[in-house]
Amino acid sequence: MVHPSVIDLKSAQAARKSIRTGQITGQTSGLAPGFVQGNIVILTVDWANDFLQFCLANPKPCPLLAVGHAGDPHLPNLGSDLDIRTDVPSYRVFRDGAVVEECHDIGRYWRDDFVTFVLGCSFSFEAELLRAGVPVRHVEQQVNVPMFRTSIDCTPAGRFSGKLVVSMRPLATADAIKAIEVTSRFPQVHGAPVHFGSPAAIGIDDVRRPDFGDGVTVASDEIPVFWACGVTPQVALERAKPPLAITHSPGCMLITDISDDDLATGRFVFVPPADRLGTIAATMV
Amino acid sequence: MVHPSVIDLKSAQAARKSIRTGQITGQTSGLAPGFVQGNIVILTVDWANDFLQFCLANPKPCPLLAVGHAGDPHLPNLGSDLDIRTDVPSYRVFRDGAVVEECHDIGRYWRDDFVTFVLGCSFSFEAELLRAGVPVRHVEQQVNVPMFRTSIDCTPAGRFSGKLVVSMRPLATADAIKAIEVTSRFPQVHGAPVHFGSPAAIGIDDVRRPDFGDGVTVASDEIPVFWACGVTPQVALERAKPPLAITHSPGCMLITDISDDDLATGRFVFVPPADRLGTIAATMV
Repeated sequence: MVHPSVIDLKSAQAARKSIRTGQITGQTSGLAPGFVQGNIVILTVDWANDFLQFCLANPKPCPLLAVGHAGDPHLPNLGSDLDIRTDVPSYRVFRDGAVVEECHDIGRYWRDDFVTFVLGCSFSFEAELLRAGVPVRHVEQQVNVPMFRTSIDCTPAGRFSGKLVVSMRPLATADAIKAIEVTSRFPQVHGAPVHFGSPAAIGIDDVRRPDFGDGVTVASDEIPVFWACGVTPQVALERAKPPLAITHSPGCMLITDISDDDLATGRFVFVPPADRLGTIAATMV
Repeated sequence: MVHPSVIDLKSAQAARKSIRTGQITGQTSGLAPGFVQGNIVILTVDWANDFLQFCLANPKPCPLLAVGHAGDPHLPNLGSDLDIRTDVPSYRVFRDGAVVEECHDIGRYWRDDFVTFVLGCSFSFEAELLRAGVPVRHVEQQVNVPMFRTSIDCTPAGRFSGKLVVSMRPLATADAIKAIEVTSRFPQVHGAPVHFGSPAAIGIDDVRRPDFGDGVTVASDEIPVFWACGVTPQVALERAKPPLAITHSPGCMLITDISDDDLATGRFVFVPPADRLGTIAATMV
């Protein structure tokens, strides 16, 4: 998770190649530092428009980076060689909202009506926090970030609805201010926090016992700071129960050729499909 | 304090003219909306370099917008017609650190060795807060913002030192996050807060009893949010006791031709004098 002063596009392409050839099959934290990693949701086209509308209506938990053409496993705006069937270290296959398999290649599942969604992930903003001198507790403690179901309703869209899931990072006040400043510049990877302070105010009973990920220490002079989390769409997926859906396994992300700096400067912009799906929706400008 | 959708340079020039001709002699809040207002400190050149170093070392309470040429009452980068001897509604004259007079024109005090400093003021970021839908309590209650001496030491420079003074705005958590996002984009008008939550943590005994300005209501679901304040340099001035110094009277600011948007976009940038004073230091790019 160390942010290098000069980033190298080769590191993103090499990491993706190692994943594609099966050398890397686990979590991607710290791989290709400086490059944006993505949450993946793949749905059949009859479910895809509802999911697109859900993402557009809930941009903090579901910040879209790309939507693929129906049936096309390539996402050239995120990487010229990228193939979504092989380039994620580990996939989860859902049938009727339940995980039925984890695997490292989805070639045998691929269909002509599959639409791929790529959503920004907090690895990018954590790299920026560390670069700004803000400590990230779960990185220090070498565990997964603690995540919680909240009492906050997402805006429903079509067949998708559900509660907002948040990730939590405990911070001293001065670091919390700095963290809000830093993350607000990255709306495409969840942006500024949605809440800080009282966990009960957003329906969290015990901040030491997360619903997903691992618990971390919260010191007496620290406040818990909560960001919208990319697990939110997986919860919506479990609730909507589409017959078939595929996601990445937690922590096992898609590595893209987009740099964190491309996001900060606005060089990379996601343009929502104007009318319906089947058009590539991410554009490098 | 309403932020118009289209701002008009004529409103800044008209306000300045009304001040120059003595029609406006009081506080400037709400005048020429969308244009940056400035705190003023005028010192003799033998004290000016220490003060410049103090400002550069403490950019949050003392964000420099301009430094005049020694003896020159004009600041063309802030307004082509601007004359600092007449264009502030009310001045305070300090001798040995104590106020000896308040007046509306300092022509009779002007000296060939006077150097003018203009520092950003929170009126600009309050306009941006209101535009973003964040309520500003003292504006609602039509009183002066509450300000407090803290236990935080400024970085000393030459003969200038002292405690940080902060302004306080009570906000609900979601608005506090939004306020940090908004104000972090305006480092030239104090930027992001320096603290939120416990007043005692920064040496404030009673958040309802400010050292300057007026007390405001803090609701039970609100937290006090503290920003570095332009009163800080006046406190440093009282402590350093230069033989002669002139400032604006509280709330009676210099209205400039720089728009809030010039700050947000970086069109207006302050360039510190490279070697010594006597060079114009603000640049329109």
